[in-house]
Amino acid sequence: MAVYTDITETELTEFLAGYDIGALHSYRGIAEGVENSNFMLTTDKAPYILTLYEKRVDEADLPFFLGLMEHLSKKGVSCPLPVKRNDGSMIGRVADRPAAVITFLDGMWMRRPTPSHCLEVGIALARMHLAAGDFQLTRRNALSVDDWRPLWNAASSGEVDDDIAALTRSALDRLEAEWPRDLPSGVVHADLFPDNVFFLGAELSGLIDFYFACNDLLAYDLAVCLNAWCFEKDFSFNLTKARALLSGYESIRPLLPEERSQFQLLALGAALRFMLTRLYDWVNTPDGSLVVKKDPVEYVRRMRFHLAVKSPSEYGFDRVGAAR
Amino acid sequence: MAVYTDITETELTEFLAGYDIGALHSYRGIAEGVENSNFMLTTDKAPYILTLYEKRVDEADLPFFLGLMEHLSKKGVSCPLPVKRNDGSMIGRVADRPAAVITFLDGMWMRRPTPSHCLEVGIALARMHLAAGDFQLTRRNALSVDDWRPLWNAASSGEVDDDIAALTRSALDRLEAEWPRDLPSGVVHADLFPDNVFFLGAELSGLIDFYFACNDLLAYDLAVCLNAWCFEKDFSFNLTKARALLSGYESIRPLLPEERSQFQLLALGAALRFMLTRLYDWVNTPDGSLVVKKDPVEYVRRMRFHLAVKSPSEYGFDRVGAAR
Repeated sequence: MAVYTDITETELTEFLAGYDIGALHSYRGIAEGVENSNFMLTTDKAPYILTLYEKRVDEADLPFFLGLMEHLSKKGVSCPLPVKRNDGSMIGRVADRPAAVITFLDGMWMRRPTPSHCLEVGIALARMHLAAGDFQLTRRNALSVDDWRPLWNAASSGEVDDDIAALTRSALDRLEAEWPRDLPSGVVHADLFPDNVFFLGAELSGLIDFYFACNDLLAYDLAVCLNAWCFEKDFSFNLTKARALLSGYESIRPLLPEERSQFQLLALGAALRFMLTRLYDWVNTPDGSLVVKKDPVEYVRRMRFHLAVKSPSEYGFDRVGAAR
Repeated sequence: MAVYTDITETELTEFLAGYDIGALHSYRGIAEGVENSNFMLTTDKAPYILTLYEKRVDEADLPFFLGLMEHLSKKGVSCPLPVKRNDGSMIGRVADRPAAVITFLDGMWMRRPTPSHCLEVGIALARMHLAAGDFQLTRRNALSVDDWRPLWNAASSGEVDDDIAALTRSALDRLEAEWPRDLPSGVVHADLFPDNVFFLGAELSGLIDFYFACNDLLAYDLAVCLNAWCFEKDFSFNLTKARALLSGYESIRPLLPEERSQFQLLALGAALRFMLTRLYDWVNTPDGSLVVKKDPVEYVRRMRFHLAVKSPSEYGFDRVGAAR
């Protein structure tokens, strides 16, 4: 939850004068996102979200993030649409921060997703991958395999349990040596957790928060989702949810045999990536901060699960697909 | 800012089945209020606020708070209206907490109020006092003069600056000895700070957050507003704003001579009351909490100002009124 920067009504009114979105009726800080300050605006026309980009987001990346949302919207992927300013740009400035107004997306995120939600997410992720295929901008994934060891070195300066340290070092060695470099790649969401997917009733109503989007292996994005959607609170792996996620994805974009055969490594890497950023935040977030710290151990548990997998079928890939 | 309790879509849908407010379209935690968890709901009918009452609010007080909002709404005071459940009650239960749905009020609070905002607040406060005159329920102010010394004893167990301790003890002695007991009393808001007053353009669009409302001296409520609205960030007293606040109030409900003559004591008491709760929270809020701690020293500075006042005219009461 986050509102790092408050804004005055004068600043906001001046800022909104640069847009054709009607007269401001209300704005409230919303407890959403951990990187930026978000406000829900209502005008006499519609509700909107105003995002102020805080330090953790590089301003140079905004054309990629906002351009991607616009591109996906045009291609029929439901996601917030950045509202153009009167001068045609999508990025303004308020309270000394870059800022954007995006459309408000109906729906709510599922605190307790079911297999049918996982199916919908798989479908939406594959559609997003295809729709982004002709997006012109690129952005390097700043949190991919080559970045994990430096992150580990920075995060493990504090006290880390010996077992976890050994597990991490061994995983890093293996991932660096075996990470696939030639699987299909493209624009990935890279953070498609349940709080970034909205549903209205049983139907998926949209994807949000593209602020980790980048170019990387497409199947890695699916592996991130598997980690985020298919484990229960007690860390047990829910095979039914995984089957639903994978079959949803493959109903739109079937994986290549080599994407399946490498999926275990991708899933291990995805678990390590979130373990590392959580560990880093755990160590580096000052007490008294407004940010809720997330426990890195949840992802250590996932790493152990992936390390014990002996065959892609354990993830729920169906046999027909595997033989393709 | 606060969302202490998250709720699942299933819990929320079940809870909302008890209301006739249409199908749920979205809900987002909002960073508003420090006592409760608040969500903005949208349905196919309208936007609403859902409040989950956390431990600091006594469930037995809810009929007073919600009944007051309903009473004031009916009397034409703009404030959120509690939505009745299908069984006629205003209080439901979700996530093991008492909860209420109230209407969404357009407008925004003024981070930098001007004298004309202060004038509007004075008018609205007086109208609220009059409108609440025939409200049937009562609630003792749990933070009035008799409660301040116990609060000080509980709050000052930590390290408190010697000067501040001496100032507080001397103010307590004087307030306990001289606190007026026979001024006009009634239902007061008791927390009408800028973040609890919404404006739409230049016009006041409504009052919110009645969760400190209680029976107390009416002029004390005005003294709370004076402390909250008429000091600048550098602690200087803005006489223009004070004149506007007081004249706005008196344009609807002129103060009695004895309310004016006792106003300094009421203003000192109001400053002490907020200093004490801030000090208590300062000492007792654990590090890492999501609540933003507010600095008690801001109210020590106000106490010093009030102690130096020699005549009610220094607060900005006009002479005509003073002679009434």
